Amino acid sequence: MTALSAAERPAAAPDGTGAAEILRRCRESVRPALTAAIGRLHPWPGEMASYSLGWCEVGGAPSVDGGGKGLREALAVLCARAAGARERTGVASAVAVELIHTFTLLHDDIMDGDHTRRRRPAVWKAYGTGPAVLAGDALFALAVETLADAPGPHGPAAVRCLSAALNDLVRGQADDLLFATRPWTGPGAVALDEYRAMAEHKTGALLGCAAALGAVLGGAPREVSDALGRAGRHLGIAFQAVDDLLGIWGDPAVTGKPVHSDLRSGKKTFPVLAALGAAPSGPRGPAAGRLAALLDAGPSEDCAVRRAASLIEEAGGRSATLEEADRHLARAHSCLDTLPSGPAVSELRTLLASVARRVR
Amino acid sequence: MTALSAAERPAAAPDGTGAAEILRRCRESVRPALTAAIGRLHPWPGEMASYSLGWCEVGGAPSVDGGGKGLREALAVLCARAAGARERTGVASAVAVELIHTFTLLHDDIMDGDHTRRRRPAVWKAYGTGPAVLAGDALFALAVETLADAPGPHGPAAVRCLSAALNDLVRGQADDLLFATRPWTGPGAVALDEYRAMAEHKTGALLGCAAALGAVLGGAPREVSDALGRAGRHLGIAFQAVDDLLGIWGDPAVTGKPVHSDLRSGKKTFPVLAALGAAPSGPRGPAAGRLAALLDAGPSEDCAVRRAASLIEEAGGRSATLEEADRHLARAHSCLDTLPSGPAVSELRTLLASVARRVR
Repeated sequence: MTALSAAERPAAAPDGTGAAEILRRCRESVRPALTAAIGRLHPWPGEMASYSLGWCEVGGAPSVDGGGKGLREALAVLCARAAGARERTGVASAVAVELIHTFTLLHDDIMDGDHTRRRRPAVWKAYGTGPAVLAGDALFALAVETLADAPGPHGPAAVRCLSAALNDLVRGQADDLLFATRPWTGPGAVALDEYRAMAEHKTGALLGCAAALGAVLGGAPREVSDALGRAGRHLGIAFQAVDDLLGIWGDPAVTGKPVHSDLRSGKKTFPVLAALGAAPSGPRGPAAGRLAALLDAGPSEDCAVRRAASLIEEAGGRSATLEEADRHLARAHSCLDTLPSGPAVSELRTLLASVARRVR
Repeated sequence: MTALSAAERPAAAPDGTGAAEILRRCRESVRPALTAAIGRLHPWPGEMASYSLGWCEVGGAPSVDGGGKGLREALAVLCARAAGARERTGVASAVAVELIHTFTLLHDDIMDGDHTRRRRPAVWKAYGTGPAVLAGDALFALAVETLADAPGPHGPAAVRCLSAALNDLVRGQADDLLFATRPWTGPGAVALDEYRAMAEHKTGALLGCAAALGAVLGGAPREVSDALGRAGRHLGIAFQAVDDLLGIWGDPAVTGKPVHSDLRSGKKTFPVLAALGAAPSGPRGPAAGRLAALLDAGPSEDCAVRRAASLIEEAGGRSATLEEADRHLARAHSCLDTLPSGPAVSELRTLLASVARRVR
């Protein structure tokens, strides 16, 4: 394990600045290799990738905004350290995962018809659908090449890890798109467990891969990479649950999306499905029944959407989602318990805590 | 090398039926493994993949049509045999290449705005753009997984071979899309050598990969896989040149596209660029000049499009393209000369000859 110098160690930070500092440092450690990778792309998809990463505006001028938080990069770097892998192994893993994550953002925004991402036009709105498809493909190919070309004997296992995650991811995205075509209630309704499987595939798989990849690439023992992969997967599921909460109750200034955006678009998310699943004869049954009637009617007016959000809370959807997130975060912590303690594991725990803090 | 039984050997067939029979046999040898691979997909992208392969109609009913010719599959199977690889190695390579080829058809039709493919609505027209993007991604991930999971020690080299081809492919597609935005004449015009580089990336890379992959996966000596890869690349460039000819002069009943389709869409292809490049003071200069004026005006009327096709021929574009195809087919034959002769190499030569025969 690479020991951190005292200067690199995060100060204890109950207010959450510790996580932000960890994310910033990990982003910076990955940035040169990620810049070099993007530089290997054809200039056109290269610009779209840079735009999506928040590095430039349309046309290539430097961006004033800084892009995403880099949770996946940080997870890859810290988990590689926790597994005793070399720094450059963690960085190579982080680059591959960030390329794949960017690819999914480009293509998912097309599939979901999302016009904005991080308060800017989505790539397909800014550059066109065809070019955005192309740039996503270029990022996908580059990610595979990054791992296939990684030095050392464990590249093949890393490619297998990534391709398994990609297959899960596509499966999850397919289910998510199909959920949109199904009714809120009745025999065709989406069950909470179906939603859980979708979220595990769609979000858990890539975070699980991010967490395991450095260990796999560095040749760590199987039980170490498995424990890290499970921790990442649970973190991913928790992250998705929190995202679902923010999609309904998040502050538009923070999320960059309109208030109640997921309700307006009729998206089937954990809080709504949990609320609809409240026992009809229990204390939350009446609210669940009123919510079902409202959703079946398709709420479009502001007041109906607000009413739906309020009924979801009344029927227990909000608290069930928080419990779901907490349960998976606790499992992620348990997975980390099996690893030798050290600064990287401590920083991972700080990251886990910050995910729960986003909605509290 | 797997010897073919007498019954399996194609009859000498100067009329081209030999190639059709070789293609059919190779398709059949690959079909069970390809069917099993597609069966591992989520049912929804799985149906879109089957539709694209010509196996089913929208909704899943069996298709009456049979799909593509399977040139890439045949190339992978025969080249693996020529390299002395096991039959299943050739089949695994063919499956990976066919999955990638299908992925590129799905995404390229979106990027190029092509509404039909093999006389049926393109996948994005039949299922929607977002679903077609998803199905392409699923096929891409499955191809990588197919190679990463291939038994034996050479999977990693095969993944590297595939990912290098994919990077070339995306680069070629980016250039092809950008060519559409450039003028026919003047300083910003597309030079013939730029077009050649694009075609080598866009079409040559995947056929080169198809030809080399079995040898790489089977652990054949480097000089064997290199020779096969070069042969495939030259075949790909020749194939693209022939496709360009068919895009202008092809019989709509055979190509499944309207007559003069590439001219109507203003596509920059080899015959046009070669014609425009005729020396102004030479015997073909006047025709080239009239063609340039016509193209700059944007021919849209039927008679103008016919006139453009005739001027391209008069300015030498058609003969230059045939020469280009022949030159690359001859180079492909030379690459095969370095391999021990045998039935697989003979069949590869039959395939090469059939490519030239498509336009004669």
